[in-house]
Amino acid sequence: MNLTETKLKSAHIFKGALLDVWKDEVQLPNGRITGREYIKHPGAVVMIPILPDRKLALIRQYRYPMGKEFIELPAGKLDEGEDRVISAKRELEEEIGFVANQLTELTEIHPCIGYSDERMWLFLADQLTLTQQNTDHDEFIELIPTRLTDAVKMVWRGEISDVKTIIGILWANSHLQHLFQ
Amino acid sequence: MNLTETKLKSAHIFKGALLDVWKDEVQLPNGRITGREYIKHPGAVVMIPILPDRKLALIRQYRYPMGKEFIELPAGKLDEGEDRVISAKRELEEEIGFVANQLTELTEIHPCIGYSDERMWLFLADQLTLTQQNTDHDEFIELIPTRLTDAVKMVWRGEISDVKTIIGILWANSHLQHLFQ
Repeated sequence: MNLTETKLKSAHIFKGALLDVWKDEVQLPNGRITGREYIKHPGAVVMIPILPDRKLALIRQYRYPMGKEFIELPAGKLDEGEDRVISAKRELEEEIGFVANQLTELTEIHPCIGYSDERMWLFLADQLTLTQQNTDHDEFIELIPTRLTDAVKMVWRGEISDVKTIIGILWANSHLQHLFQ
Repeated sequence: MNLTETKLKSAHIFKGALLDVWKDEVQLPNGRITGREYIKHPGAVVMIPILPDRKLALIRQYRYPMGKEFIELPAGKLDEGEDRVISAKRELEEEIGFVANQLTELTEIHPCIGYSDERMWLFLADQLTLTQQNTDHDEFIELIPTRLTDAVKMVWRGEISDVKTIIGILWANSHLQHLFQ
């Protein structure tokens, strides 16, 4: 079945500090014309950091759109034209104050395919060395070292509900368990 | 540590057919003032549907923001003021043409906490009865009945990359395997 939608025209709705909003006119497979509104996003990296004591480095962070704190894996947006590995290294140090001497890209996931083109790359971050926590001025972050087995329980109990974090923890539990022992 | 950000004022940037974009001025824990841009979303339901032959009902759908087709669990947005169970039943029938006689809410996940307030509720949809596929006029959907064990392999191979679908499949594999046999 042909499912493709074809762009007819594109309008730039809003360009903020964070959000880049577009509205396109598209032709559907049946020939009908409709609108598609979406966010253009630079992409993001998500890290599964293994601390020197073999605990997983989770963080606690306030998320304004949701109006509450979340337990998450460290993550961040790519800077313009930035290599993903560089971005993963930079964001990890900014958020938890450790430099990863070994970064391995694991997979790519898509958090918001209905209204954003955001792609997220999941990295294993190992061989961590403490430098100093050097957070972004708008980010307030608490480090929560957690045993992988406990993190998995927090997922199944619904205490971790952020999708990138759920997927990173379940990925680690299925494929990387030996690294956390 | 106090991580809370306090709203000072709120501006409505754009209200489209799909996207509702806001920009607030907020006070950070250190007293500094900054902006927060985000999408207001009505929330969504995601279904794990078990077909009469015990296969998982996945669908294939073109996602315009990403410019390609995705393999997904059936899902949809809540209508204004709509009960989640009603929404789950309605969206499932619209997308795959089966009515679920048993819907069980499993958990709540958050796909996009950096720039959207979207909440997603995951439902088990069982005791399905074929009615007829009655898709939304803007939705073109192909049903892909899949064994749960195959769906899990597709996740680990990166063939399924949509976050709600990954989490639904891994949830089913960890907690509901007996229903797929």
